[in-house]
Amino acid sequence: MSDDRLVQQIAFLVQADRLKTVLRRTPLTDNSRLENSAEHSWHLALAAIALREHAPADTDLARVLELVVVHDLVEIDAGDTFAYDQNPAAHATKADRERTAAERLFGLLPPDQCAIFRALWDEFEAQATAASRFANALDRFQALLLNSQSGGGSWATHRVMRSQVLTRMAPVRSALPSLWPYVVDVIDRACDSGAIVRD
Amino acid sequence: MSDDRLVQQIAFLVQADRLKTVLRRTPLTDNSRLENSAEHSWHLALAAIALREHAPADTDLARVLELVVVHDLVEIDAGDTFAYDQNPAAHATKADRERTAAERLFGLLPPDQCAIFRALWDEFEAQATAASRFANALDRFQALLLNSQSGGGSWATHRVMRSQVLTRMAPVRSALPSLWPYVVDVIDRACDSGAIVRD
Repeated sequence: MSDDRLVQQIAFLVQADRLKTVLRRTPLTDNSRLENSAEHSWHLALAAIALREHAPADTDLARVLELVVVHDLVEIDAGDTFAYDQNPAAHATKADRERTAAERLFGLLPPDQCAIFRALWDEFEAQATAASRFANALDRFQALLLNSQSGGGSWATHRVMRSQVLTRMAPVRSALPSLWPYVVDVIDRACDSGAIVRD
Repeated sequence: MSDDRLVQQIAFLVQADRLKTVLRRTPLTDNSRLENSAEHSWHLALAAIALREHAPADTDLARVLELVVVHDLVEIDAGDTFAYDQNPAAHATKADRERTAAERLFGLLPPDQCAIFRALWDEFEAQATAASRFANALDRFQALLLNSQSGGGSWATHRVMRSQVLTRMAPVRSALPSLWPYVVDVIDRACDSGAIVRD
């Protein structure tokens, strides 16, 4: 086979398969096991299509889909940093670990495509566009949905406090305000059941 | 909460979570376990972005992403029908089982969105648009990639013959012709290693 670009693209897709083995702290809704970052990314893409009417009208859905599909790939090398991790070191090194991962993983692709994927990842991280804010709000909301449906999930396991969850969900309030009453209702119910610690 | 549409959308997204528990016959590239249909759908979306230059220039990538994200949802009720199943009954009932599943699952959404999701699923099934043919070719190609990387995967487990694999991969030949030499090379190597039965 003489197509060097195709060889590089396939090497990238083979590496990407490993995202299916990166576990998050959030369980599936049936509480049978922890979710992995690949199926999580798919769930965000589906949520983007199903919830698009809640985003500002000028939000580019195609861009949102590309963002959510690509945004977690760096976890293949950098791992998933738990949102409620009490250890500041985990968050302090996150940016460096993920940048190094982005360089290696996207660097498997031909240079023009490396730049395209890097731009997608950078856009998600920078949170400066409507598409990236919608994608990020979905990312936060989907974790709330899974935790609430599974009986507490990572909130209960890690004894997370109400104020921490509210802070974590702030992007939903700003980017998907029509979902905010639902979010607050879910959090209050989780406090009532003891899944979230009221503070 | 008074937003009935949001209640329906969330019920749909909670049901959709079950796609993560539908197992395919294809293992992950590291052969650690079988792939599920949710992470498979994510991998197709990533492949669509990475391989878009191999599709006809007028192929609508946004549409392809929506198609691959939605196309396997019916398996939540209908199960994954194995491509190389020797039992004709499995394939004979597939269309009916999946249609019933589509009606129930997409019917969880408000009627206008039910129609949008049904149109996506119908478009993938009908294979009449460039986007759906690209999506289908990716679906076939990704399974070949996982089988070849995992040392034979479902080919070896089910003693699949070369002619069956070539037939299964025909959509790649027509919709992604620049990938065809790679596909034939993979199949020939798998015959040499005994993973595929030469006939």
